[in-house]
Amino acid sequence: MGHRHIITLLTGFGVQDAYVSSMKGVILDICPEAVIIDISHNVRKFDVRQGVFLLHQAASYFLEGTIHTVVIDPGVGTERRRIIVKGKRGVFVGPDNGVLSLAVQKEGFVKGVEIREKKFMLPNLSTTFEGRDVFAPASAYLACGVELEEFGPRISRMVTPSFTRATCKKDKLVGEVLHVDRFGNVITNIQRRLLSSFKVVKGEVFQAKIAKDCARITFSRTYGNVPVGALVMVVGSGNFLEISVNRGCASDLFKVDVGSRIEIFRLSNIIS
Amino acid sequence: MGHRHIITLLTGFGVQDAYVSSMKGVILDICPEAVIIDISHNVRKFDVRQGVFLLHQAASYFLEGTIHTVVIDPGVGTERRRIIVKGKRGVFVGPDNGVLSLAVQKEGFVKGVEIREKKFMLPNLSTTFEGRDVFAPASAYLACGVELEEFGPRISRMVTPSFTRATCKKDKLVGEVLHVDRFGNVITNIQRRLLSSFKVVKGEVFQAKIAKDCARITFSRTYGNVPVGALVMVVGSGNFLEISVNRGCASDLFKVDVGSRIEIFRLSNIIS
Amino acid sequence: MGHRHIITLLTGFGVQDAYVSSMKGVILDICPEAVIIDISHNVRKFDVRQGVFLLHQAASYFLEGTIHTVVIDPGVGTERRRIIVKGKRGVFVGPDNGVLSLAVQKEGFVKGVEIREKKFMLPNLSTTFEGRDVFAPASAYLACGVELEEFGPRISRMVTPSFTRATCKKDKLVGEVLHVDRFGNVITNIQRRLLSSFKVVKGEVFQAKIAKDCARITFSRTYGNVPVGALVMVVGSGNFLEISVNRGCASDLFKVDVGSRIEIFRLSNIIS
Repeated sequence: MGHRHIITLLTGFGVQDAYVSSMKGVILDICPEAVIIDISHNVRKFDVRQGVFLLHQAASYFLEGTIHTVVIDPGVGTERRRIIVKGKRGVFVGPDNGVLSLAVQKEGFVKGVEIREKKFMLPNLSTTFEGRDVFAPASAYLACGVELEEFGPRISRMVTPSFTRATCKKDKLVGEVLHVDRFGNVITNIQRRLLSSFKVVKGEVFQAKIAKDCARITFSRTYGNVPVGALVMVVGSGNFLEISVNRGCASDLFKVDVGSRIEIFRLSNIIS
Repeated sequence: MGHRHIITLLTGFGVQDAYVSSMKGVILDICPEAVIIDISHNVRKFDVRQGVFLLHQAASYFLEGTIHTVVIDPGVGTERRRIIVKGKRGVFVGPDNGVLSLAVQKEGFVKGVEIREKKFMLPNLSTTFEGRDVFAPASAYLACGVELEEFGPRISRMVTPSFTRATCKKDKLVGEVLHVDRFGNVITNIQRRLLSSFKVVKGEVFQAKIAKDCARITFSRTYGNVPVGALVMVVGSGNFLEISVNRGCASDLFKVDVGSRIEIFRLSNIIS
Repeated sequence: MGHRHIITLLTGFGVQDAYVSSMKGVILDICPEAVIIDISHNVRKFDVRQGVFLLHQAASYFLEGTIHTVVIDPGVGTERRRIIVKGKRGVFVGPDNGVLSLAVQKEGFVKGVEIREKKFMLPNLSTTFEGRDVFAPASAYLACGVELEEFGPRISRMVTPSFTRATCKKDKLVGEVLHVDRFGNVITNIQRRLLSSFKVVKGEVFQAKIAKDCARITFSRTYGNVPVGALVMVVGSGNFLEISVNRGCASDLFKVDVGSRIEIFRLSNIIS
């Protein structure tokens, strides 16, 4: 049977409505042999940050050539480009609002196009549901072998949102919250390589400012290395710094939300 | 590999229990090559209205021959027929309580049968879970090529619920709410063709009575054509009139629920 | 195309994060022809009881040879075995904390191994996400035809949690709550065969103690045989005794939760 074409979906549509299944119907109508995998449909309305994080976390685990379809789009129906970007591993389809940026950066940008060609869209375009009318068909036609160049003109760069950049200053790390997961783990935009430049050591205790609250927190390899109920920083499974509580829920301790500021201070400098 | 058989599922079982996966197990046990797609499993208990809307919205996007399995069934275990209906595009399997009606009407009724033949049901029939014991096997046997006629006697008509009919009077449209979606859009049973008979013009302002509340509301092509926070009526992606708020949540403004009455008055007549 | 390999997933990861989709990416990367079916991802954190129940309920409906992957694991990152068990029907992959026990007992234990071989794990093992790094790859390699023996040393027994054993005394049944489903049905660990030893008759009325509350309750074949709003005990679709309310919600009537004690007394003995 040759190659199976995997198409992932990441949206904010939820699963109580028929939005997601309409997209799947469209995809299978165009490319019946596609295999569709849900990344998540519970991204909060308009929240590009969560989309950036979830796509970055999931995409690298998929087969080379997987087509990732992202519909997280505060600007639906307004002027912003709809793009397809080929990375070194996957292909990314979505609005050019930054939501694809971190996942593409991670594997490297190969080429990109703007989706313009009407013949690869549904014939009766609605103005409210580009996920079904533009992005789902684009992904399905890609899975069927249509080349990027046929969808529209080349683009040389994509929108990159500012919140993807955490900074490492002399004695502190500054970032922000990308996502709070089901277990109450607070996931920041501080990546593993930034921790290396900051010369973080396992077992070291830091002072953290999380939104408006301050706390001491241990950096550890795993949750279980601190007492039950204690705060701990780990590098999570997506290579981002996470603030957690061993067997507890960090997001219950702080008034913290997606977008909140996070500062990590080296304790020695505070004391001295 | 020839043709892949797509089976969709629309239920009120939720996804925290094993109900849906048991149905999928049964389907794949009978027809291992079936491709199963979820429409939704979050239809509120006993709510045939939502089922009618979601099936109508999703079904037309699927490949011809797709088998839609619907288990929204306040009367499980009591006397009501279990049916299979072949439409011009899809095949519909479910209880004969009206839930299939609008989707079948949309594409046209070709033929229907009652499910009676025990050999196409699970051997140990439970009385509480026909989704798994009757409807899932029926869909799987259909996907395997069993003909409609083998399941039981022909039926010539199906139950059609009264709530699918909105009316257009001289100066007002009267309908009701079918569904409130994740974004708080209030979806009515007023279809696009009824709006045409009512001679609605883009940009026209109407008086609406939504459950017990009244409001002025603009008819527009897209949410974004009215100011942020303003009420707007659009023809949604399913061809039904929706009441929405640009970047807001219409269902927060009114005491509105599935089944609430909706009246749309032509403003000129109220003024004159 | 020969045989399609079905892999089911049962976890507590929820669907708002990228945990589940990362596991699916890993599986399809190793075994692109796998068919992945979700049992549930909404098991409450650390709740082995719910996992036991859901796996037991769903597994027997799947095709022989189906690989069931269970990641319900309060002890992730600590010392407990990670196992693969072949039953008479399915293959079970998960932590050795009892979560696989009832499903394996139901169909009969054939053989089991501990997962030790590093070449069947992801190269960069995280300490927090064995679902993705150990269990997903194990299931995918099994689907690709790797033999049990290649994963590690044989095991002769598995952990069996005490809560899977309900007891039948002279005049009472004693069990506990395994799961409360979406409809508020309270599902106990009392199985059909225990009811047979207790010589329960349809229509018989019992005295029940549910957590701290007492109530009279009828044993019936189906919900609909008692008046709307009345309490009823039925043998549910998974062969466990369920406490329900006809068209109502039993879990709203009692302070009951997973793990609550359930006692069923023969009424004649109370009166005499």
